[in-house]
Amino acid sequence: MMTRNTTSAVLLLSCQDQKGLVAATSDFIYRNDGNIVHADQHVDAEAGLFLQRIEWELEGFRIDRDELADAFRPIAEKFRMQWELHFSDNVPRVAILVSKLEHCLSDLLLRQRMGEYEAEVPLVISNHPDLQQFVEPFGPEYHFFPITKEMKAEQERKQIELLEARGIDLVVLARYMQILSGQFVRHFPNRIINIHHSFLPAFPGGRPYHQAHERGVKIIGATSHYATEELDQGPIIEQDVVRVSHRDSVQDLIRKGKDLEKVVLARAVSLHLSHRILVYGNKTVVFD
Amino acid sequence: MMTRNTTSAVLLLSCQDQKGLVAATSDFIYRNDGNIVHADQHVDAEAGLFLQRIEWELEGFRIDRDELADAFRPIAEKFRMQWELHFSDNVPRVAILVSKLEHCLSDLLLRQRMGEYEAEVPLVISNHPDLQQFVEPFGPEYHFFPITKEMKAEQERKQIELLEARGIDLVVLARYMQILSGQFVRHFPNRIINIHHSFLPAFPGGRPYHQAHERGVKIIGATSHYATEELDQGPIIEQDVVRVSHRDSVQDLIRKGKDLEKVVLARAVSLHLSHRILVYGNKTVVFD
Amino acid sequence: MMTRNTTSAVLLLSCQDQKGLVAATSDFIYRNDGNIVHADQHVDAEAGLFLQRIEWELEGFRIDRDELADAFRPIAEKFRMQWELHFSDNVPRVAILVSKLEHCLSDLLLRQRMGEYEAEVPLVISNHPDLQQFVEPFGPEYHFFPITKEMKAEQERKQIELLEARGIDLVVLARYMQILSGQFVRHFPNRIINIHHSFLPAFPGGRPYHQAHERGVKIIGATSHYATEELDQGPIIEQDVVRVSHRDSVQDLIRKGKDLEKVVLARAVSLHLSHRILVYGNKTVVFD
Amino acid sequence: MMTRNTTSAVLLLSCQDQKGLVAATSDFIYRNDGNIVHADQHVDAEAGLFLQRIEWELEGFRIDRDELADAFRPIAEKFRMQWELHFSDNVPRVAILVSKLEHCLSDLLLRQRMGEYEAEVPLVISNHPDLQQFVEPFGPEYHFFPITKEMKAEQERKQIELLEARGIDLVVLARYMQILSGQFVRHFPNRIINIHHSFLPAFPGGRPYHQAHERGVKIIGATSHYATEELDQGPIIEQDVVRVSHRDSVQDLIRKGKDLEKVVLARAVSLHLSHRILVYGNKTVVFD
Repeated sequence: MMTRNTTSAVLLLSCQDQKGLVAATSDFIYRNDGNIVHADQHVDAEAGLFLQRIEWELEGFRIDRDELADAFRPIAEKFRMQWELHFSDNVPRVAILVSKLEHCLSDLLLRQRMGEYEAEVPLVISNHPDLQQFVEPFGPEYHFFPITKEMKAEQERKQIELLEARGIDLVVLARYMQILSGQFVRHFPNRIINIHHSFLPAFPGGRPYHQAHERGVKIIGATSHYATEELDQGPIIEQDVVRVSHRDSVQDLIRKGKDLEKVVLARAVSLHLSHRILVYGNKTVVFD
Repeated sequence: MMTRNTTSAVLLLSCQDQKGLVAATSDFIYRNDGNIVHADQHVDAEAGLFLQRIEWELEGFRIDRDELADAFRPIAEKFRMQWELHFSDNVPRVAILVSKLEHCLSDLLLRQRMGEYEAEVPLVISNHPDLQQFVEPFGPEYHFFPITKEMKAEQERKQIELLEARGIDLVVLARYMQILSGQFVRHFPNRIINIHHSFLPAFPGGRPYHQAHERGVKIIGATSHYATEELDQGPIIEQDVVRVSHRDSVQDLIRKGKDLEKVVLARAVSLHLSHRILVYGNKTVVFD
Repeated sequence: MMTRNTTSAVLLLSCQDQKGLVAATSDFIYRNDGNIVHADQHVDAEAGLFLQRIEWELEGFRIDRDELADAFRPIAEKFRMQWELHFSDNVPRVAILVSKLEHCLSDLLLRQRMGEYEAEVPLVISNHPDLQQFVEPFGPEYHFFPITKEMKAEQERKQIELLEARGIDLVVLARYMQILSGQFVRHFPNRIINIHHSFLPAFPGGRPYHQAHERGVKIIGATSHYATEELDQGPIIEQDVVRVSHRDSVQDLIRKGKDLEKVVLARAVSLHLSHRILVYGNKTVVFD
Repeated sequence: MMTRNTTSAVLLLSCQDQKGLVAATSDFIYRNDGNIVHADQHVDAEAGLFLQRIEWELEGFRIDRDELADAFRPIAEKFRMQWELHFSDNVPRVAILVSKLEHCLSDLLLRQRMGEYEAEVPLVISNHPDLQQFVEPFGPEYHFFPITKEMKAEQERKQIELLEARGIDLVVLARYMQILSGQFVRHFPNRIINIHHSFLPAFPGGRPYHQAHERGVKIIGATSHYATEELDQGPIIEQDVVRVSHRDSVQDLIRKGKDLEKVVLARAVSLHLSHRILVYGNKTVVFD
């Protein structure tokens, strides 16, 4: 990946595969004196789908950023594209949902502190009060929403309100041990990232390390994915694995798995925040 | 692992965990002037089970190899051990079952040719005639058993006869695309090794690479395991994985997977042939 | 990677980074009704260099393949590109140089047999006669060139002649344990691929597994690279590693390393043959 | 690894390989009613060396822990062993030395906070004041020792004094960018763990990520090792790697490398603290 200090524009687009697509977007940028710093594309031959990410510097570009979307629209319409336009200096706002296990939460907070990704984290939500003291020195508000079966719908409604009020762009489930309702998930389409502590589709649902130990696997994994209404079935963003053996107890799997979960979640969040993921069907294209 | 040129004895044993086990076996070897070259043990605390592999040189050992089993029996009975005794100069006999895909077969034949493991491979069995010409220059007999639904039971009976007649110790399913009957499997308990082309328990059954592509996973795997009556459910011996991306078509997964399958199967065969695997419940302990 | 059955053209190009490059090539293809099936680019910001691979189907393309180079030349000259044009139906010719260890050689021959890459292998050259019987059933001629200090220059001259006579496009050093002279190497610039049995730049030169064992590393590797005049210093194409421990003797490292060497060399050969590698300075860009 | 809640004793020993070693120690434990929970050994055939780790529960053991060393001494002397005896309820004291980069430091502090290893961290020493505010909420004292060429010897003397005064068992160099003098290193033999940000022996010394980028490697690594007088030459404890490509700038290597460094250092610290490492010559045996 390139790192330049000037602001850039990022186009993420997909449409039916057809001739002239690469030429059309690259010509649009060239005619307006843009300097492309990253371009990647993918054709899904089976689905007949073209997907592209293209990023160019705004410095010296002849179209003002406020008019850029309007200027590109005719091309998008001609090819019937689905498209998003982002600017690299727009700092996204992230909320982290967590229960009692702190490793993913603390990892994300520390990475943000060290500047590993450009984002604000104004808000942490939990169904337990335990991590409040830990979180607050890092800056975010900590909101405790106890969840019982009876109050779940009501609490979710309040959570959505709070997320909206804080202008949250991305919700990260950092080992949040509550199943979100369809209503919640639909509210943030492709904007909720979950970490599941197994190598999906192996061991979905609860206690995956116990399941893995029971089955006697020689490798365990972790999976970050967009949350969808079906539990642990959303589009996979990133996975990683680590070798285990008969010597490893369930506790060892949990300990080794934590290191996986942290890294796999952090990569997914970073890819999302730099607009490198396109979802189509139940899959992702990751332009890394 | 140690490699010495003298003959050694290998004890593989398991029993209820209790005090004095390590002392009993090591004292037995020491009293008789044996030199231990490898010793490894495992305690499954949950199951209360003790498992051990111990290997010592026969040179200078006071008990003759023919009397060794009898000499050890009192210790085994005292602790109610399940045990096996092997000698390193006994060359095991392997049969390979294959269908049309040759990569695992050719890999095993080449490794044997290069002396990577001590074994004879006198026999290849296939439900297709295709690989006969390829196999024969390497030495093994090639037996073609066409399989149809009607004749399957009869053909399996003949295969078992042939395997028995050739004194086969280990049956390797090197991408053999037939489901073995319970009868066949029971005939060779923990002596049939299969390679499944997925990271089990993900994607059991047919066309795992198609399933993996459909699900959009970012890593694929291969699994070697002992065949049991339930398909793809046997004790896992070894697994490995490789990273894939949206750029990989199903054909790419198949191609990348082949390299995994070869290595994962070869490792399992080599571990089995050097008596490094203990099966208990539906799991393996691998003393590597 | 995409696999389509029609013939395609591949452009590999590099030049000083400047605006309009992506537009110029994609517009050239679009204007002539080409359908792009793969396009990837890289900008080395430090070096100010633009590098691109672009592949499109010839079916329906308005320019005849014989005239394609001439038609593209004005664009190439305008941007002062270094460029190569390849056609996917041109089957490259590969010679394998080997000494006594057969694992890389046999791996390459088997992959070719299985159709893993489109290439002919008409020629195997060795400084030992040992592998002749093994090689010939696979098809290639086997030429034995004994090498002594005195006759080395003369033998290399004859080898070059033979390679030229057989129209060889790529020379693969499959554990060929002779150091090639500068003269030989210069004759095939970026057309000789070597496998070195260490994770370069660690352990260059002789006996890398012994060096690794001596140093007590916990991971060993293998490296495929283009041969240059300086031993083990050429542009790296691919590397891979495997975990080892104190339990592994030098013999174990050699055995584990063989599996690495095979895969790392095969990947490099396959990438080269599908025109996915661009060399610049002492590095490679791999468009995979 | 087993986790039991009772206190256990750990023997780490090495001596010339000879018959009866395993029997002698296991018999010692058995005769005194000890229950072995972990036993592992290694024979370095070349060096003729036997190395062993053995751990047993103290509950029910007939010898009092205060008299255990004396009781074992006759066996140790008979076989001329080098040996250490540890008790699992003895909580080791760790000091962390750091410069400006916080990722390894924060990772260690968080793991300690989460109870991933049993240790106290009473002391952080730095040659910069920057991280004081970050560290103090976690508990340790923060001591700032500015280092210039002139004052280095004097400052090191004071650091040693402070480390002694605080009863430090293990010194961790968590990206401490100062070269320790031989005097310092000799003061804590095999008790200083360093993290080097390359796959040693590749890229020793300064700016390894820049060196790796320059060389065009396809994989980068990190190495934890005991500090010795020769820079980056000490016994390697643990290594790990991650894949990179031409797309990765030096900044990307640094970012990816950080995740490696954290994990590789944490594993080494954890192995040391659970008495699983034996150093011999310039190598380690890791009983994991």
